[in-house]
Amino acid sequence: MAKKILNVGMVGYGFMGRTHSNAFLQAPRYFDLPYQPVLKAICARSAERVKGFAENWGYQTIETDWRKLIERKDIDLIDIASPNNTHAEIAIAAAQAGKMVMCEKPLGRTAAEARTMVAAVESAGVPNMVWYNYRRVPAVTLIKKLLDEGRFGRIFHYRSKFLQDWTISSDLPQGGEALWRLDVDVAGSGVTGDLLAHNIDMAMWLNGPITEVVATTETFIKERKHNLTGKVEPVGIDDASIFICRFANGSLATFEATRYARGHKALFTLEVNGEHASAKWDLHDLHRLEFFDHRDESQLRGWKSIHITDSDHPYMKHWWVPGLQIGYEHTFVHQVADFVESLAAGKSCSPTFADGLATDCVTDAVLRSAKTRQWEKVLLG
Amino acid sequence: MAKKILNVGMVGYGFMGRTHSNAFLQAPRYFDLPYQPVLKAICARSAERVKGFAENWGYQTIETDWRKLIERKDIDLIDIASPNNTHAEIAIAAAQAGKMVMCEKPLGRTAAEARTMVAAVESAGVPNMVWYNYRRVPAVTLIKKLLDEGRFGRIFHYRSKFLQDWTISSDLPQGGEALWRLDVDVAGSGVTGDLLAHNIDMAMWLNGPITEVVATTETFIKERKHNLTGKVEPVGIDDASIFICRFANGSLATFEATRYARGHKALFTLEVNGEHASAKWDLHDLHRLEFFDHRDESQLRGWKSIHITDSDHPYMKHWWVPGLQIGYEHTFVHQVADFVESLAAGKSCSPTFADGLATDCVTDAVLRSAKTRQWEKVLLG
Amino acid sequence: MAKKILNVGMVGYGFMGRTHSNAFLQAPRYFDLPYQPVLKAICARSAERVKGFAENWGYQTIETDWRKLIERKDIDLIDIASPNNTHAEIAIAAAQAGKMVMCEKPLGRTAAEARTMVAAVESAGVPNMVWYNYRRVPAVTLIKKLLDEGRFGRIFHYRSKFLQDWTISSDLPQGGEALWRLDVDVAGSGVTGDLLAHNIDMAMWLNGPITEVVATTETFIKERKHNLTGKVEPVGIDDASIFICRFANGSLATFEATRYARGHKALFTLEVNGEHASAKWDLHDLHRLEFFDHRDESQLRGWKSIHITDSDHPYMKHWWVPGLQIGYEHTFVHQVADFVESLAAGKSCSPTFADGLATDCVTDAVLRSAKTRQWEKVLLG
Amino acid sequence: MAKKILNVGMVGYGFMGRTHSNAFLQAPRYFDLPYQPVLKAICARSAERVKGFAENWGYQTIETDWRKLIERKDIDLIDIASPNNTHAEIAIAAAQAGKMVMCEKPLGRTAAEARTMVAAVESAGVPNMVWYNYRRVPAVTLIKKLLDEGRFGRIFHYRSKFLQDWTISSDLPQGGEALWRLDVDVAGSGVTGDLLAHNIDMAMWLNGPITEVVATTETFIKERKHNLTGKVEPVGIDDASIFICRFANGSLATFEATRYARGHKALFTLEVNGEHASAKWDLHDLHRLEFFDHRDESQLRGWKSIHITDSDHPYMKHWWVPGLQIGYEHTFVHQVADFVESLAAGKSCSPTFADGLATDCVTDAVLRSAKTRQWEKVLLG
Repeated sequence: MAKKILNVGMVGYGFMGRTHSNAFLQAPRYFDLPYQPVLKAICARSAERVKGFAENWGYQTIETDWRKLIERKDIDLIDIASPNNTHAEIAIAAAQAGKMVMCEKPLGRTAAEARTMVAAVESAGVPNMVWYNYRRVPAVTLIKKLLDEGRFGRIFHYRSKFLQDWTISSDLPQGGEALWRLDVDVAGSGVTGDLLAHNIDMAMWLNGPITEVVATTETFIKERKHNLTGKVEPVGIDDASIFICRFANGSLATFEATRYARGHKALFTLEVNGEHASAKWDLHDLHRLEFFDHRDESQLRGWKSIHITDSDHPYMKHWWVPGLQIGYEHTFVHQVADFVESLAAGKSCSPTFADGLATDCVTDAVLRSAKTRQWEKVLLG
Repeated sequence: MAKKILNVGMVGYGFMGRTHSNAFLQAPRYFDLPYQPVLKAICARSAERVKGFAENWGYQTIETDWRKLIERKDIDLIDIASPNNTHAEIAIAAAQAGKMVMCEKPLGRTAAEARTMVAAVESAGVPNMVWYNYRRVPAVTLIKKLLDEGRFGRIFHYRSKFLQDWTISSDLPQGGEALWRLDVDVAGSGVTGDLLAHNIDMAMWLNGPITEVVATTETFIKERKHNLTGKVEPVGIDDASIFICRFANGSLATFEATRYARGHKALFTLEVNGEHASAKWDLHDLHRLEFFDHRDESQLRGWKSIHITDSDHPYMKHWWVPGLQIGYEHTFVHQVADFVESLAAGKSCSPTFADGLATDCVTDAVLRSAKTRQWEKVLLG
Repeated sequence: MAKKILNVGMVGYGFMGRTHSNAFLQAPRYFDLPYQPVLKAICARSAERVKGFAENWGYQTIETDWRKLIERKDIDLIDIASPNNTHAEIAIAAAQAGKMVMCEKPLGRTAAEARTMVAAVESAGVPNMVWYNYRRVPAVTLIKKLLDEGRFGRIFHYRSKFLQDWTISSDLPQGGEALWRLDVDVAGSGVTGDLLAHNIDMAMWLNGPITEVVATTETFIKERKHNLTGKVEPVGIDDASIFICRFANGSLATFEATRYARGHKALFTLEVNGEHASAKWDLHDLHRLEFFDHRDESQLRGWKSIHITDSDHPYMKHWWVPGLQIGYEHTFVHQVADFVESLAAGKSCSPTFADGLATDCVTDAVLRSAKTRQWEKVLLG
Repeated sequence: MAKKILNVGMVGYGFMGRTHSNAFLQAPRYFDLPYQPVLKAICARSAERVKGFAENWGYQTIETDWRKLIERKDIDLIDIASPNNTHAEIAIAAAQAGKMVMCEKPLGRTAAEARTMVAAVESAGVPNMVWYNYRRVPAVTLIKKLLDEGRFGRIFHYRSKFLQDWTISSDLPQGGEALWRLDVDVAGSGVTGDLLAHNIDMAMWLNGPITEVVATTETFIKERKHNLTGKVEPVGIDDASIFICRFANGSLATFEATRYARGHKALFTLEVNGEHASAKWDLHDLHRLEFFDHRDESQLRGWKSIHITDSDHPYMKHWWVPGLQIGYEHTFVHQVADFVESLAAGKSCSPTFADGLATDCVTDAVLRSAKTRQWEKVLLG
């Protein structure tokens, strides 16, 4: 019996365009999916470059205007992999055209923007998802499972960091294709939206809602040459963003993201401490879970380094054999697999746009607190 | 300009069939290759199962008799991913038919068998390669580069292990599709050919020829139910294989492989100690290289853990961004990329069949020494 | 030539009484000191127990009233190893009697209390020191040296934690000899004074003054049986204390201490990120320094794990040979050695009482901020 | 009630003289011992230097001729901390004089020499012990306990290394006080007796007798200036020594010691793999035990890093609090404590001279096999 087809129209051919394209191609090879994703069309402004991208990844057609892409009848799903300032307009139009919508994170540059996007998909009743891919690192998914099983008891502490060091040089310009993340107009914010958003999405998924925050941000290098204007311009983004918060479950937390932590490339970390157990994970060794269980025999208590490559670990039976690790791009493959399975089951697949909005509400509170120098409540709704 | 096509005919749809298929699909997406590999045909005995495999991986046609596959004019390259006892016959026939040949490791079950294969490809003058994939773990490739640059000075020591624990239960049967590695007739030997062959190939690539060995082997569980006969039969393979050796460069080494090292899934390790520097690597954290340089400032000397994810690390500019790791299957992708590039350049791509034979000569000496309880010279030629 | 004698009068025979006694005994055996410390007298309330302690450690005499100890002409130095609520009274009396004074940390329960102590020693002109022993972990001392040499460039980030898990059980009582740290009247505060004080002392030594903080504290278990009253009483201490701060040099920092981090016994950590280099250290592997230098050759950049056991590492030429580690109590030995050498040189030995006060000013600001929910400036003078 | 006195007469004031002296001083402070060791006399050839050593460590008297020391009535125990070539003569004379004898390892330079020493102490019926101190690293002692409890099941593999790098420079001379370990006449052998002896003693204690070995040794630098003759002389010691062996319990093992492993200072390692569990330990992080238990829940199996600092860990209740590590010299303290407790109980304290001989029998077999290039049985009796 032929599988149902899921025709994908992708917007954007940058770094995220590659990870998403790979995911749509690989998911059906490793997972037995009820739909067959098809790379129907890729859309971006430069006709020449989009053509090369289409050839490389096997897209059947190309578009250079996303509005045309959305109008096409042969597209089921619009996947937005373009910079942050394009998310809302495309997502809303796609939803209004009745397309399923996937969107890179953060959902909006602000919670206000994200709210309009949630309204659009909910009003249209279309399946939707945000690419917070790190939830689907198998080690992280296992922490979620262990938490849901109540193995940690009462949670006391959560801490999470995202440390990078790639913008320390003052010679680095801002803006333009490769460096739009440093341009506040395009990105919306700096590390708060780019990095902390990942930390927050994962934290709320694992540990529930954040109720209030107190934060500080810093822009260490105040001016950089702007690639679009050619002039030295003020830097509008935050280079570092740190906050303390309280979760609804009574636990305390620290969060930190920076691009000025020399020696760290993409060190996304989390640790959760409960009454009975604790867990740690980091992205630099993403295939390992560190787990401590106080119920172990006293003289043999310690942190266990679990190599998450066994068939009873989340997602891993679909890959290789014990001991053989997977990498970064696999998290996107898992997300496609889960999305397609949810679709067939008629369920929504988290993180939905509503989840993406919840994260934007926290990043808004963080940026607000950095300005007011006060504790700020996370404002929902 | 259209790329040249490289039509692949694959034999075998097991674990290795999957890794090779993935490699042919992924290599051209991440590397700018002069040939476009095409999954033209997949061949295995079960028509039904080969059909499912073909659909999953996108093979255009299927065969159930490898002789027919070899006869086909539309196949450029035969890739042998079937069990060890099929390697020689298929490879020789393929070479005689003028096909390029890739073969899973070990090349032959014995050096004698491997010699016939080398003779065949050399006589036919066809490009050939053995899938010792671990040479192309970026961290390992970097060690090779550093050694070639002379950074280690005189080499004193080499040590390498491959530790697994999946056959400890005496309830595990031998033989049949999933467990042919425990059946000596099919596999040729136990961990010596299956695991140590990897250690030896990498060691000789990095540190040059091995001249003599003294070894011991053990079969801890002497009888197991055989899946093909249904009876309890003697176990003919070695469960553990350990040897000491000397390299032509004067260095001493220890090698060990076992499937009885509780707690280790696929812990392939290497360490090389030179006059000025040392390096360590292991497969459980394959994206890391441990490096020690005695020329560092004295008070700051230490082992450096290098996260091999930067664009100036071997192969890594083709993947993601710093900090984002790749996994096991990527090593096969790199091997396809290198093979295709060598092909276009008219060069052979190592490890060739001749390299595969060199490794078989060492495993032969190891098994011989385990019997004679003597030091055994590695017999080449 | 006979060495000069330094007659020590110790107050307190608890955990810290042991570490100090050991330090006075061991320092002259491993360091060539200008003075010979002599354990002249030990003082504590229970005559019977103080006698046993004196015998064990070789104290020549005992006292049960610290006022008498201070009056003795044959005592040169009063070392205060008794609970926090005794520090100020004893230290001030000792200074007024012209004795040198060493005091366990934190100096006072509050900055106000500490100020009176500083005034006393400065008015009396007596040598004085606070036992912030962790400055003299060789790895930490080496970080200080590297920072002072300017190897890090501009500092962007500092982070430090002190994680424990020994008070999670609600059955644990508060107060009395072994548990005075849970009794707010004796201890002054909870983890802020007991643990964070160590983090802050080390941070300011390494990274300069802290200018302002925003903090939160929590008491997870609100009531515990009190050992002195036998009744369930409110818990007055903070179980967890977290703050964000800014240093005078423009760097941002996070600090956290808790006794509710399951799986951590005494995990004191620090990390400092500079423009050119970063360093990490933790107490659970106190003999290791993690160091990253961006000036290393690009492809070989990584975190170096330096085993701080070489003769060119701080303090280490006095101990064993490379590879052989020292432990916790050695930090106190180093502090005695430095104190005695400073004494002979007529210099003060840091951390002095003035340094101890500076730390109390920060802990005061932390506790104040936790109440006001505002950023609080660190108030000096 | 006054404790019984144990008057110690020490021979040798080098590195081992320091560790032993420290042990006799520290043991009674941390352990409640039935005897009080007293540093009665120190003996070595240089009167001036022995005087300085005596002052530093508090020895009551000095001797410059060990025969006189042995004649003294006020000495209960002779502790031999002088170079290997002095062990037999002193130990035999001491035993004949009715003294208890402790001797640095290796017991004899050969098994033949050791046999005469065993005969002497057994004939005299005096308590005796060899300073294989590493058995009393708490993590190692815990492995012994776990093995004795049968937690590992059948043992399949054992591996142990001792890697150093301090003799790589060809400028390093041999012989004389600081470098007698490179002088074959004094040391007896190179790394085989100096390092491997430790590995073997620990291995047989943990895993039972070794039955046969096949070995190779190498002297990388063939000539060095001799400090005693002032001339360049052949080097008689082994720089590296590697062997494979079989234990009586059927397990296989690899052992390796070298002083040419760049980057390792004193990396003594062990790993034992059993049917149900495995353990690892190394001297560079001596306070940690790595433990894997296959009986753990499948999805949470991993190697546990146990910080051996809790009161229920061997010896640790005598030291500090959880999280605070001890160092190298503590192992000697433990050995004194155990010796004294055994003495009071009228039991022998292992490793006895008989245990030391058993190790010498294995090192003999190793050196023999390196010459014969054959498997050699371990010859006992």
